[in-house]
Amino acid sequence: MLKRPSVTPPHIGRLTTGPRNAITDVAGVAVGHATLADGPIQTGVTVVHPHSGDIYRDRVPAAATVLNGFGKSIGLMQVAELGALETPIALTNTFSVAAVAQAQIRQCVAANPQCGRRLPTVNPLVFECNDGYLNDIQAMAITEEHYLTACAAAGPVFAEGAVGAGRGMSSFGLKGGIGSASRRAPIADGSEYTVGALVLSNFGRPSQLTIAGRAIGPLLEEKLASTAQAPDEPEKGSIILIIATDAPLDARQLRRLSLRAGAGLARTGSVFGHGSGDIALAFSTAYRLPQDPAHPMPSVAVLHDALLDPLFQAVADSAEQAIIHSLWHAETVVGRNGHRRQALLDVMAGQLSTSPEQRT
Amino acid sequence: MLKRPSVTPPHIGRLTTGPRNAITDVAGVAVGHATLADGPIQTGVTVVHPHSGDIYRDRVPAAATVLNGFGKSIGLMQVAELGALETPIALTNTFSVAAVAQAQIRQCVAANPQCGRRLPTVNPLVFECNDGYLNDIQAMAITEEHYLTACAAAGPVFAEGAVGAGRGMSSFGLKGGIGSASRRAPIADGSEYTVGALVLSNFGRPSQLTIAGRAIGPLLEEKLASTAQAPDEPEKGSIILIIATDAPLDARQLRRLSLRAGAGLARTGSVFGHGSGDIALAFSTAYRLPQDPAHPMPSVAVLHDALLDPLFQAVADSAEQAIIHSLWHAETVVGRNGHRRQALLDVMAGQLSTSPEQRT
Amino acid sequence: MLKRPSVTPPHIGRLTTGPRNAITDVAGVAVGHATLADGPIQTGVTVVHPHSGDIYRDRVPAAATVLNGFGKSIGLMQVAELGALETPIALTNTFSVAAVAQAQIRQCVAANPQCGRRLPTVNPLVFECNDGYLNDIQAMAITEEHYLTACAAAGPVFAEGAVGAGRGMSSFGLKGGIGSASRRAPIADGSEYTVGALVLSNFGRPSQLTIAGRAIGPLLEEKLASTAQAPDEPEKGSIILIIATDAPLDARQLRRLSLRAGAGLARTGSVFGHGSGDIALAFSTAYRLPQDPAHPMPSVAVLHDALLDPLFQAVADSAEQAIIHSLWHAETVVGRNGHRRQALLDVMAGQLSTSPEQRT
Amino acid sequence: MLKRPSVTPPHIGRLTTGPRNAITDVAGVAVGHATLADGPIQTGVTVVHPHSGDIYRDRVPAAATVLNGFGKSIGLMQVAELGALETPIALTNTFSVAAVAQAQIRQCVAANPQCGRRLPTVNPLVFECNDGYLNDIQAMAITEEHYLTACAAAGPVFAEGAVGAGRGMSSFGLKGGIGSASRRAPIADGSEYTVGALVLSNFGRPSQLTIAGRAIGPLLEEKLASTAQAPDEPEKGSIILIIATDAPLDARQLRRLSLRAGAGLARTGSVFGHGSGDIALAFSTAYRLPQDPAHPMPSVAVLHDALLDPLFQAVADSAEQAIIHSLWHAETVVGRNGHRRQALLDVMAGQLSTSPEQRT
Repeated sequence: MLKRPSVTPPHIGRLTTGPRNAITDVAGVAVGHATLADGPIQTGVTVVHPHSGDIYRDRVPAAATVLNGFGKSIGLMQVAELGALETPIALTNTFSVAAVAQAQIRQCVAANPQCGRRLPTVNPLVFECNDGYLNDIQAMAITEEHYLTACAAAGPVFAEGAVGAGRGMSSFGLKGGIGSASRRAPIADGSEYTVGALVLSNFGRPSQLTIAGRAIGPLLEEKLASTAQAPDEPEKGSIILIIATDAPLDARQLRRLSLRAGAGLARTGSVFGHGSGDIALAFSTAYRLPQDPAHPMPSVAVLHDALLDPLFQAVADSAEQAIIHSLWHAETVVGRNGHRRQALLDVMAGQLSTSPEQRT
Repeated sequence: MLKRPSVTPPHIGRLTTGPRNAITDVAGVAVGHATLADGPIQTGVTVVHPHSGDIYRDRVPAAATVLNGFGKSIGLMQVAELGALETPIALTNTFSVAAVAQAQIRQCVAANPQCGRRLPTVNPLVFECNDGYLNDIQAMAITEEHYLTACAAAGPVFAEGAVGAGRGMSSFGLKGGIGSASRRAPIADGSEYTVGALVLSNFGRPSQLTIAGRAIGPLLEEKLASTAQAPDEPEKGSIILIIATDAPLDARQLRRLSLRAGAGLARTGSVFGHGSGDIALAFSTAYRLPQDPAHPMPSVAVLHDALLDPLFQAVADSAEQAIIHSLWHAETVVGRNGHRRQALLDVMAGQLSTSPEQRT
Repeated sequence: MLKRPSVTPPHIGRLTTGPRNAITDVAGVAVGHATLADGPIQTGVTVVHPHSGDIYRDRVPAAATVLNGFGKSIGLMQVAELGALETPIALTNTFSVAAVAQAQIRQCVAANPQCGRRLPTVNPLVFECNDGYLNDIQAMAITEEHYLTACAAAGPVFAEGAVGAGRGMSSFGLKGGIGSASRRAPIADGSEYTVGALVLSNFGRPSQLTIAGRAIGPLLEEKLASTAQAPDEPEKGSIILIIATDAPLDARQLRRLSLRAGAGLARTGSVFGHGSGDIALAFSTAYRLPQDPAHPMPSVAVLHDALLDPLFQAVADSAEQAIIHSLWHAETVVGRNGHRRQALLDVMAGQLSTSPEQRT
Repeated sequence: MLKRPSVTPPHIGRLTTGPRNAITDVAGVAVGHATLADGPIQTGVTVVHPHSGDIYRDRVPAAATVLNGFGKSIGLMQVAELGALETPIALTNTFSVAAVAQAQIRQCVAANPQCGRRLPTVNPLVFECNDGYLNDIQAMAITEEHYLTACAAAGPVFAEGAVGAGRGMSSFGLKGGIGSASRRAPIADGSEYTVGALVLSNFGRPSQLTIAGRAIGPLLEEKLASTAQAPDEPEKGSIILIIATDAPLDARQLRRLSLRAGAGLARTGSVFGHGSGDIALAFSTAYRLPQDPAHPMPSVAVLHDALLDPLFQAVADSAEQAIIHSLWHAETVVGRNGHRRQALLDVMAGQLSTSPEQRT
């Protein structure tokens, strides 16, 4: 795990990373996968835990931006209304949203019987991309158990690339999947906060790929053409961008952060294609909101909005970096019907030396 | 079916109704129910078909307003992005959203194999309210089959009250459920259009009930208290308001219409309670949008916005009327654990003579 | 001032009022008018001060709902982004928005020179309705001075009816204008908060008027017809609804409150007409947000969302009540070209005895 | 005019440009400037005409995306509600919004007396950035006359750089201002449409500048430091991005296009800074919406959403290109207090040879 490829990916921007350069640099955040990789079944579940406690009882503030709403994720309507998460964040394939949501409800009811008594109101939150190119998505191989497996596996150290929900995903005609990164954001008041990003990348046409400002697309198209890959088709992918921070922010501010993930996404060549479900969600671990209105609410001094720019930069940079990581850590996968997605490093061997120029 | 109670419900406003005073007065719209009523299982599915063809191939323009986003409905994100429905509209209980969505996907794939090949992108649209007071919701009695049953039963004539998705719903401490109404809207340009509403009512505390402007709440509270009903609790219900029209409107205009359903809802006493998922969706049957981009798009002259006021009035009036109908047509239901919700007409016998005053 | 008409207006709902039944029951809130009433000039400015200090230095949390966006108010884009007010709230006629905004900028720069140095970023907030029926709006009689006059006059006691920005406004074919009301909201945790509403009413056709659930419209139409008033025309009015509360809420929650003003508005007969700019804004006085990011941010425990229902009810009830008050306190005004708008109590003398029935 | 600098700016992406590589490649669109350049007065007005007729009588469909709402532009609320422009689009400095809006109203009333009779409802649309570093903004040098001058000057050929509203603007610590570009978008159905962008650039810190994927920022910082320019400050700028197209689209689709301007903006280094008013507006010239509801509405077959990707790409590419052009065409300007903003080409002489790599 966390095996880093021999060619170091370029560092995006000038902010420094946290120790793991991963979303789990935000203290308390844990990520787990359940990966199914067996012939035509190439899929999985990835879970992001905002903290190690019960998220239903102790919710965290959150908000999302829908960059392009071509998608079947569930749970965002209530996040928009209440500005909080009450389950871990689950990622999976399009056809498994229902199974995973059901698992979230049962998990919540098991841990909090009152949440299922008479008026169960837990709001499942499941994001999806369509891995139907590599994965036999109609087999619906994901069960509730896989969600629990991913939860049980969650920790601060986790694999990137063709794992968990990312197992069957494709990006830019290459193998996509899970990527993560982090940045430290020094604030003008002398404080410093961490921003972490985790993406499930399943978007982009080969011609669009841009890495650290460099237009890889044309070269990539050539390479892929020579390997008899599918031609440049209309984008039917998606990308989910999860942003975590330990900065004390409310839902309104977290929405502002989530939008900036779109800036990082744009820098990789995306124009938020028509058929792509491009969604960014940001949450803060700085405080918790009790589910029970009889419990005292936390007293919170949120960060002044005028201090947010370094966090905006950190969101854009870590989101771009996480997308690059999702490609960089991918391995070539062969799935249903012999469909094959190659790893970036396999296709572009020798062409991706770390750029000396940095983006800011 | 369509048995009307002996006491005529008050007519809301001054616009005239269509022949059925139901959403199916909008030509082509069909409604069907699957009702489960067996001891602790009191639930169902209701389906609204915008037209008799295949909705996936021939989509209809649509838009929604989330009045209060405490809910677990699915499909609205894509409706907001693309401004179109591509499945019939399904209503059911909270825990059956996944099963019904799955049924919608399978139904689409069966009828349109290409919609499931490689990249199935049909967007299920399932609204829910929680019928857990009367119904053993955790038994998850709804299966995909029930959705198909409701579809097969769909027609221009349909029952209101404790049927379909409305079987186990409660409103104002009374039996709620399915209600419908319609209004004719004369436009200044000489044309006339029909607006129809169908609601799934599961909202409201007894103290709030207002019928045709008359505050029934205080009297209702007294009556319910004497029958040892539950006290006035925080609202944890929901209401789904579906608006159909044959006026040629685009998604932007249909969003404007959907918001006006909230005006009708407010006039029944609702203030869009915190725990209530209050969602209104409006669609037009005036033209169809092909799923296949190779098919020609329809040439449409939408109605001028300055002519919309009669439609706004028709939406508010028919929504209010539909809510009243959902109570008026309800029958007393006893469900799980002997829980019981009485019909409005049983509780208020003799108190609800039609008001001579009309609301405008 | 505060001369109450002899016929008491009906009390909306079951919540009790604050001592003044006005927005200034929220401690610290002050309202002032500048009224121009001279022949064809029938207009003015009304100012709502969230607190007695400098609003630029010490901002208050706020959010708005645009029920119908046919209007020319300015400042809402930044309120939506930052969730705060940084000037007093100004109300005036459509053609005077620019003059009043300019006055707000100058007032801010004078009090806070740094706000005008190099990069003046104060965000003026000016709402408008069109009083062109009674007022010679093209004369642009409002100057920056009138804004300052209104500010200087601001206090806890203020007149309602045909005063300030309400001087030339019309509602339901009658004289509209400024109305206010308040409600006490008892919260389940034992606390109690005050909600106050102030409206600038300039909306509604005679046929729509509903007072405390009673459809006054048909009778009003008859009465107005006999006085040779203009016929029932398409609505081209607007209504601005300002909601204040001392409950500790953030911008996300205040948006939720502001929407509920629409429920009160709907109960008076409005369906948010096409040509009407219907905007609700809510702010909290519970804490202040420093403009200067070097100042410490307040530590705030906002109210749990599950406790908001009484506040929602209070918003709807006080908004409806304030609209009624705007009619009740109006006096008949004759303006430009002899145009005349009669007071409700003049037209409906003897028909408006307080209803014994209360709305909840 | 249209004097192109000797070093050719890099071409963004792979789409071809229209003949002028400017927004006026969309047939019928005209742009005009009024420029004030006299000592401390360095400011102006720029006008974009969607067509050569009367925009009030014959409106065009339009929609906007607020990327960051820190701004004082007016008119967007009604554009969001009605999906149409009814005046030319005006750009100016922050303090001149009121004067220009007033000019728009008067212009409309003069041409359409009925628009000012009794209930003047024309919706002015004025965007602004703050040019207070170079311009003595408090002098309020812009008068209504300048708006008319810009209108009179409008045509298909226009200057870019330090002209019109761009005269006093700064970007990335350099001279910013007006830039424009266009792209041809080939659609899968065989048709081809033009997308044009015009920006008013006044955003960005030197460290962020990225041109065609190349991080210019670090080098630029060095260069600027040696010329004793201001250090890298929090961003307090803004950018307005106007997108025109001749593709037949409705307001919902135009909102989708407008968001993609943000992708182009992001690729220049922006993360939509807190203090920046970043707004994109898109309009279509393909059909006109009559103001008068008695006139027939056009019958329109809008483009299928599944065909929009080339337009999205064209928007992002032309927006990025337009920003680069705003820097490329700028000349060094010295304004109030001797404040000075250098032209990119002056600062980076010899460093900006056209990159052989293209971005897609």
